[in-house]
This record gives sequence, C-alpha cells and structure tokens, in this order.
Amino acid sequence: MEKLFVIKIGGNVIDDEKLFQSFANKFSSIKEKKILIHGGGKIATEIGKSLNIEPNYVNGRRITDDATLQLVTMVYGGLINKKIVAYLQSINCNAIGLTGADGNLLPATKRINNEVDFGWVGDTDEKKVNTKLLNSLLINNLTPIIAPLTHDSKGNILNTNADTIASVIATALSKTYEVHLIFCFEKRGVLNDMNDENSVISLINDNEFVKLKSENKIHSGILPKIENALQATGKGVREVVIGKAEDLLLNTSESVIGTRIV
Amino acid sequence: MEKLFVIKIGGNVIDDEKLFQSFANKFSSIKEKKILIHGGGKIATEIGKSLNIEPNYVNGRRITDDATLQLVTMVYGGLINKKIVAYLQSINCNAIGLTGADGNLLPATKRINNEVDFGWVGDTDEKKVNTKLLNSLLINNLTPIIAPLTHDSKGNILNTNADTIASVIATALSKTYEVHLIFCFEKRGVLNDMNDENSVISLINDNEFVKLKSENKIHSGILPKIENALQATGKGVREVVIGKAEDLLLNTSESVIGTRIV
Repeated sequence: MEKLFVIKIGGNVIDDEKLFQSFANKFSSIKEKKILIHGGGKIATEIGKSLNIEPNYVNGRRITDDATLQLVTMVYGGLINKKIVAYLQSINCNAIGLTGADGNLLPATKRINNEVDFGWVGDTDEKKVNTKLLNSLLINNLTPIIAPLTHDSKGNILNTNADTIASVIATALSKTYEVHLIFCFEKRGVLNDMNDENSVISLINDNEFVKLKSENKIHSGILPKIENALQATGKGVREVVIGKAEDLLLNTSESVIGTRIV
Repeated sequence: MEKLFVIKIGGNVIDDEKLFQSFANKFSSIKEKKILIHGGGKIATEIGKSLNIEPNYVNGRRITDDATLQLVTMVYGGLINKKIVAYLQSINCNAIGLTGADGNLLPATKRINNEVDFGWVGDTDEKKVNTKLLNSLLINNLTPIIAPLTHDSKGNILNTNADTIASVIATALSKTYEVHLIFCFEKRGVLNDMNDENSVISLINDNEFVKLKSENKIHSGILPKIENALQATGKGVREVVIGKAEDLLLNTSESVIGTRIV
C-alpha cells in the first residue's frame, strides 16, 4: 500500500510565525501523500477577546455557545486555514483548505449530554469520514488542510477536537493507504521525566501503556493522546508518532526520534 | 456543450436570513452544474467595527490594509463561506467552499497603482483560473462555493471583487461548458426607470449599450456590471443575466425575466 502521512499541529505551531514557516517548509518537502489537520491557537482567544466573546465554562468544561461557534468558524475555517494554505501554495505544495462541511468531508453528531450542554460540539467517527472525497483530492496531488470543524447535516457547523479529527481520518484511510499518524506537540515525545527532553519513551504498545499507567509515569495531559493513538493503531493505522513539530522530517522518516505507538 | 450556471450573490442575500435560505433552496434545486460566488455583507462591517477595524479610504477608494485583510479572510473565507456550505449540505447540495488560494484556484497579482496603494487587493483574469480543479470538482458532482479572495502565490491572500471573480471564472469555463452567468442584485434587472421595477430592459447588446449610455439612461452603479457582462459574452460566455436573487429559478430557465446581456 502507498504511504500516507496524516499530520496534526496545534496552536503552538500556528501562533509562532517562525516555527510555523519552518514547519510548513518541512511539511511541503515530504514527498509522500499527506494531510494536515490544524488546531486553533492564541489568535482565536485574542480575537474572541476583542469581540467580547468570553470563554464560557460549565462544570469546568468549555462550552461552544453561539458566539464561540461564530468565532471558531471565522478563525479556524477562515483566518488560520487560509493562512496555512496560502503559505503552502507559495512553497510548491498544492494545498486545499477544508472544514468537515466542505464536500461533506466529516458529518458529525451534536453532542448530547444530560448534565452539561456543550453547545455546538460535534462527535464523529471513522465511519463518517468521506474517504471518497479525500482520495480524489489526494490522487489529484492536492494536499488537504483540515480545520477542526465538522457539520451536523442540518445546516450547522460544529466544533470538534483536532486530535479526534486526525485520528478518525487516519483510521478511515488506513483501508487504502499505509497510514502514519503524526501528532506534533511541544515535547520531543512522551517523556519518562517531564523535565528531561532526553527521556523520550521510544515505543509504547498496549502492554507498555498499562505498565506506564500503573506506575503513574504518564503526565495526565498526554494520556488522551496515547489512548487515541492506541485506538487508531488497533483499527488499522500503521503507526502513530508523538513528537515535536521541529522534528517532522525525522519523525516521517525511518529514523523516528519521537514516541512511536504501535 | 453541457450547461453550467455561474451565479453571483452579494451582501443583500447574505445579510437577510430568510432571503438567504430561500435563495439557497432555489440554488440547490438547479439540476445543471453550478458554481456560486459570494460577496461580503454587513456582517463583515459589523465584525470589523467590534474589532476596531475602521474602513480605510484613500482618495475615496477603499484600501485593504493588514487588519482589513485579516477581517475579510475570516469573514468571507470562514464565516460566510462555511455558513453557505453547511446550509447547502443540509438541502441535498454537495457544496465545497473555496478561496482562490485553495488548490491554487485563482492566482492574482497585487494591484500596483502609483497614486493610491490599495493594499492587499488582487487583480486576476480568465487565463489564471485553475479550470482543471473546477472541472474535476464539477465532474464529481461537487458544487464550488467561492469566496471573493485570491492569492499572490507568495503566501498572501488578496481581496478581489466578487463580480470580477464570477466573470473570469465564467469566461474561463466557457471553453468547456455553455456558461450562463447570473448576477443577483437588488433589482429585477437593469431598469429604464430606477423607481419602476416593471421597467426592466429585457435585452442589452453592444449597440443597445452604446445607445443607453449616450441617452444617460443607465444608473452609474450598474454600469461596471454591464461592461463586465459584455466583456464576458465577448469572450465566450453564452449569456449574462442581471436580476433579483428571488427570481433565480426563472432567470436560470428559458423564461428569463431579468436583463439578458448577449
């Protein structure tokens, strides 16, 4: 099967112009087929503040109310997505920006929760991904750049976690491609010692994960990423790599220096 | 040749929820291949005000400065474009939202003017249109929804007039399709008497245009639209219709009630 990289970047890469351009240059130079999923960033919070849209929390959980949905649709689907696309277009990467509404790429279900109304939040899964659309773009040498937005097929955009979108797209495409899912974040990988960048755990599998969890060795912030990754590999994704955006070229080569999850 | 409708709507359709939905329902029901180009709307001005982005004029001409470019990228490329796409997706129209940067749909040149620096404004023409991309989307039964943004191939989004985009896309595709270009605006058509909606001039050709102009019968606001339209028909577009959004179904049928320009 042909190799496909599904790569996810978060706010840290988007907010830092120098890091963003350096990442994009590396991304563009990947010769294999590739898809980028991007998160939000501080710019969304800043523009929200200027628009007097205050983050709305219920029981400690962030709510996507009407104003927040408008904000993320503008900033994720417009500002950030088009900035990435325009830059990639200037460096020889035929990028095409999409939300989950475009071409019905990613239908989702508005989250129903009896305790908390999360607002315009969408849950989706690998069965809902429009792989036909992604495939036809990839075959035409287009590189999809995907904002963390889905839709409910009733006319509404929904806010969906970018890690989840990366994961379900990687899983859905693993029937057609040898998919490598790369999560870029602030650290070199999953660390044995949070304060030591040289303590990267090079490989995590199911058994290793249970062991690390029982030893309380994994920082709580990274736990959902690893669970997410193990689920994806369990469903056909060849491997997941968690690492730094700066290390993209190594982590998409044979010499991975981040944490491999298989 | 197969028929293709290239339809342009302006702010009046976008700002009025009822009018927008009624228009979108009609648009979705058009059986032939179709492309929608949308303009801005009051929502852009309102969000700009909240963000303290004041419209910037030099010698009476609107300038796209850095802040305005950010605003239109967010609002045109994100908010308005995705609202249209999500709504169309809910009524059986497989819409896909694009700016001119996406898939290199519409490269443009930053406008150089020795008297006024217009800022991030892009000029483009029919030779620059990526007809291969549009064609492959249309063949896959996708309906492109295009925001009035282009790019300079150097990493920058540019602000471009929506009428111009509609016109160059219609012209570029007229080699492959029998293109009908429909401009939706506030009036039933070009009127003989501005205050009488029943005074629609049903047909304008080059000779008629010269005559109407010499008689000072044409309202100055509509002049560029007609010149634009005559240029497009001169370059292969089958016909241009100027009319009301409400009349879309008639104006895309054999019983046009707007102004036909041939």
